[in-house]
Amino acid sequence: MKKEIIFFDNASTTRIDNSVFEVMLPFLKDNYGNPSSLHDLGQNAAEAIESSRHYVAKLINSEDDEIYFTSCSSESNNMALWGIAKAYRDKGTHIITSAIEHYSILNPLKELKKEGFEVTVLPVDSYGFINLKDLKKAITKNTILISIMHANNEIGTIQNIKEIVKVSKEAGVVFHSDCTATAGIIPVDVKEIGFDCISFSAQQMYGPKGIAALFLKKGIKIKPLILGGVQERGRRAGTENVAGIVGFGQAAKIAKDNMSKDFERIKKLRDKLINEILKTINKVKLNGHPTQRLPGNVHLSFEYIEGESIILLLNYEGIAASSGSSCASHALKSSHVLSAIGVPPELANGSILFSLGKYNTIEEVDKVISVLPSIVEKLRKMSPLCK
Amino acid sequence: MKKEIIFFDNASTTRIDNSVFEVMLPFLKDNYGNPSSLHDLGQNAAEAIESSRHYVAKLINSEDDEIYFTSCSSESNNMALWGIAKAYRDKGTHIITSAIEHYSILNPLKELKKEGFEVTVLPVDSYGFINLKDLKKAITKNTILISIMHANNEIGTIQNIKEIVKVSKEAGVVFHSDCTATAGIIPVDVKEIGFDCISFSAQQMYGPKGIAALFLKKGIKIKPLILGGVQERGRRAGTENVAGIVGFGQAAKIAKDNMSKDFERIKKLRDKLINEILKTINKVKLNGHPTQRLPGNVHLSFEYIEGESIILLLNYEGIAASSGSSCASHALKSSHVLSAIGVPPELANGSILFSLGKYNTIEEVDKVISVLPSIVEKLRKMSPLCK
Repeated sequence: MKKEIIFFDNASTTRIDNSVFEVMLPFLKDNYGNPSSLHDLGQNAAEAIESSRHYVAKLINSEDDEIYFTSCSSESNNMALWGIAKAYRDKGTHIITSAIEHYSILNPLKELKKEGFEVTVLPVDSYGFINLKDLKKAITKNTILISIMHANNEIGTIQNIKEIVKVSKEAGVVFHSDCTATAGIIPVDVKEIGFDCISFSAQQMYGPKGIAALFLKKGIKIKPLILGGVQERGRRAGTENVAGIVGFGQAAKIAKDNMSKDFERIKKLRDKLINEILKTINKVKLNGHPTQRLPGNVHLSFEYIEGESIILLLNYEGIAASSGSSCASHALKSSHVLSAIGVPPELANGSILFSLGKYNTIEEVDKVISVLPSIVEKLRKMSPLCK
Repeated sequence: MKKEIIFFDNASTTRIDNSVFEVMLPFLKDNYGNPSSLHDLGQNAAEAIESSRHYVAKLINSEDDEIYFTSCSSESNNMALWGIAKAYRDKGTHIITSAIEHYSILNPLKELKKEGFEVTVLPVDSYGFINLKDLKKAITKNTILISIMHANNEIGTIQNIKEIVKVSKEAGVVFHSDCTATAGIIPVDVKEIGFDCISFSAQQMYGPKGIAALFLKKGIKIKPLILGGVQERGRRAGTENVAGIVGFGQAAKIAKDNMSKDFERIKKLRDKLINEILKTINKVKLNGHPTQRLPGNVHLSFEYIEGESIILLLNYEGIAASSGSSCASHALKSSHVLSAIGVPPELANGSILFSLGKYNTIEEVDKVISVLPSIVEKLRKMSPLCK
């Protein structure tokens, strides 16, 4: 149980930073008040939430009161889509998204279609980029919302988001972005980029699971997803996850402070891993754009073998990697993202994602480089597809 | 800061039990995997979730796979109402509830009305009981859902829930109950009572904030509130709050083991507090039923003075109490529950709730008894209403 694990699954979740853990502890022990209570214990919790909100806001350069805490990015995405769609329904019923969005975007949109909304799903090119011309053509007078992710969680491609937002602004359409894969990892400046609304979570930036946020620019209308008490200024009911919020605040603070340093270091590890694998193993394809990609993303498709088998043999060596989409991994479907960028199903099945984070070292990269070729060789020898 | 606090606000939230805190720690440190990941770290988390689900199910005597984890009782209530209403819309559009439900029931129902549903809000008597005849009369062929809380979080009245559910069953209508105030505190046996669906949370039973559950009986249909990945068997998307779930499991386990012992002890403290206050202070009314009430609930209305002022002076003495509804405390509205049981607004404004829990002692009760009369006297002297 206590073996050292090489954790290359940082796109699924991250190890909580020690300083995050430390600030959470008092709120799991003596500081247990309900932030809505008037007494000291309640007000201590309320103050801690507001101080955390400030750090979370600073990370993305928003105002404090543009941050709404939720329980996960999926909730933030659902809240954004349902809430904005319903709030702007009198203005129009058309929504635009892309083919490589997370299921917490695509599945609510399927439901919204059943409720009378019209949805355009933009295709992407072989790198995962949407085409600005496609976007321009898709916008009609009936368009009320565009939701395009900042970077893709599977293949790591970072969209040309500023240009995309610009087109949306010019058309006067509300723009939402799923920034789960980017906030805390690469700069997300909502003012500079011009986002109206973004989703992001703590667990992607060395914070705890169970806490996330929605940024909503002042003036943009939304209907709440969870109705009840007046928490989060009436936009998200429910007793606050105080310890989670405090952890998120600290995670946002250190992410802001260390982002550029971590970015450079992780990117070097990523590039070494990519280069060595492509050099030592044949019939393997790097998915996503070679440079305009998340600093820790190494998404590869190996011919003739199954990604799941690679993951299990890596696990045996103490290396944690993933098939790309943790949320879909129990669905036993091949990735809609790979399908959208034109990877044929048989190759898509041979995909794995190494996602590197700030705790990874060059020694860990070397270990993967040393064991992966023999794992692939072993599996290919067993494969009926490999002649 | 480090003064000893007498915490009589257990209806708002509770102190995390030490054993709950201990089981959560590994999942905030080394055991940080995403339960959807195939590697050991992911599978450790997945197993911990299933083991917790078992304890949560055992607490309410349900099957394990009838438990869905959510982020708070408000989410569970919204999920139940929206999800069941939408799933049964082809059968009918009428929903019945009571006037003293939590806002996370009443506010979603207001929205559902806008979407074409018809809602009957049953009145309650001066104790907070609904009338079975009213319920029977309200049920029509168009009725698809009845949502009545097990016990009221403010005035503590425990409904005659078995009789209510029986009426509902006979009419073949799906029955949901907000059991936030009862699960873990008094027995909630879903099979014995006959519930189809209940909401409850960890933070009410010495577990962490940010984690709750929905029980949904097999065969009852529901549409998810949060769509995306296939977590929680496709009914609640989003990466699981693993540490929270593990804490909930342990809280449910100890609640089940210690419930009857805690119940008796807390009830004695409650009755002493009620009796002494009624004896030593005049012009004060106990709200709710004198005996059929939550073991820790002491809800009182004092003539001529403001509940908020009492809370602030108690706070000065190191005693944490509440105005009754923490979720509404920032809304600056007087309680809809007190209004429903016929407490006039001027008396309702003088209300406070002492909610006792398992950590409270007889010495703490004595302390409140010793300081409260002079606080009330002082405030009454200042009150222009008190002649």
